[in-house]
Amino acid sequence: MERIEQYRQSIRQVLTSHATFVESDNADIESQFVFDTEHDHYQLLEVGWEGLKRVYNCIIHLDIKGGKIWIQRNMTDVDIARELVEIGGVSKEDIILGLHPPYKHPYTGYGVA
Amino acid sequence: MERIEQYRQSIRQVLTSHATFVESDNADIESQFVFDTEHDHYQLLEVGWEGLKRVYNCIIHLDIKGGKIWIQRNMTDVDIARELVEIGGVSKEDIILGLHPPYKHPYTGYGVA
Repeated sequence: MERIEQYRQSIRQVLTSHATFVESDNADIESQFVFDTEHDHYQLLEVGWEGLKRVYNCIIHLDIKGGKIWIQRNMTDVDIARELVEIGGVSKEDIILGLHPPYKHPYTGYGVA
Repeated sequence: MERIEQYRQSIRQVLTSHATFVESDNADIESQFVFDTEHDHYQLLEVGWEGLKRVYNCIIHLDIKGGKIWIQRNMTDVDIARELVEIGGVSKEDIILGLHPPYKHPYTGYGVA
């Protein structure tokens, strides 16, 4: 359980460090951090308006499921899995690359569900 | 503050009632409830795979900001604002239709930021 709490902190740290991916020179676009510790869902979103065009994007979404961190979405050019390992100290087998179809997970060098 | 707590409960109730919008006959698609009471962001998502096609959709997203409920996303055909009023007992001026551009808010019959 202490490990999971450490993973939650690592996720917060990684998400917070990428807030700049949200266009910051437009005051009508809000960057939202979503930290749901009840279901262990964590996101960075951008929500708002670019003139009359609605903006709604999930930039990063990480989950903790079955004791492992799932990368569910990553619209940045950053290697989030690597950051979790190098900055967060998460072991590779505890990270699942959810953006690869499940049959590929054993060949990613990362974890398997 | 008691009113905000009541709004949180109403949001949970409305989101939970629409879980069926997530395709339920596909075991590879997970419906996720996101309840972030720290930042007051609430979502219903579908996440998973349809064969080799990645599925990632936010079906509904509601926020509480400045004491009002913002509808940030609604991919259903349900009138969420009306449900919040009729089922949740939320007053119309405390609901903001975030899917309309801000200049339209005064003409929606609902609230203004």
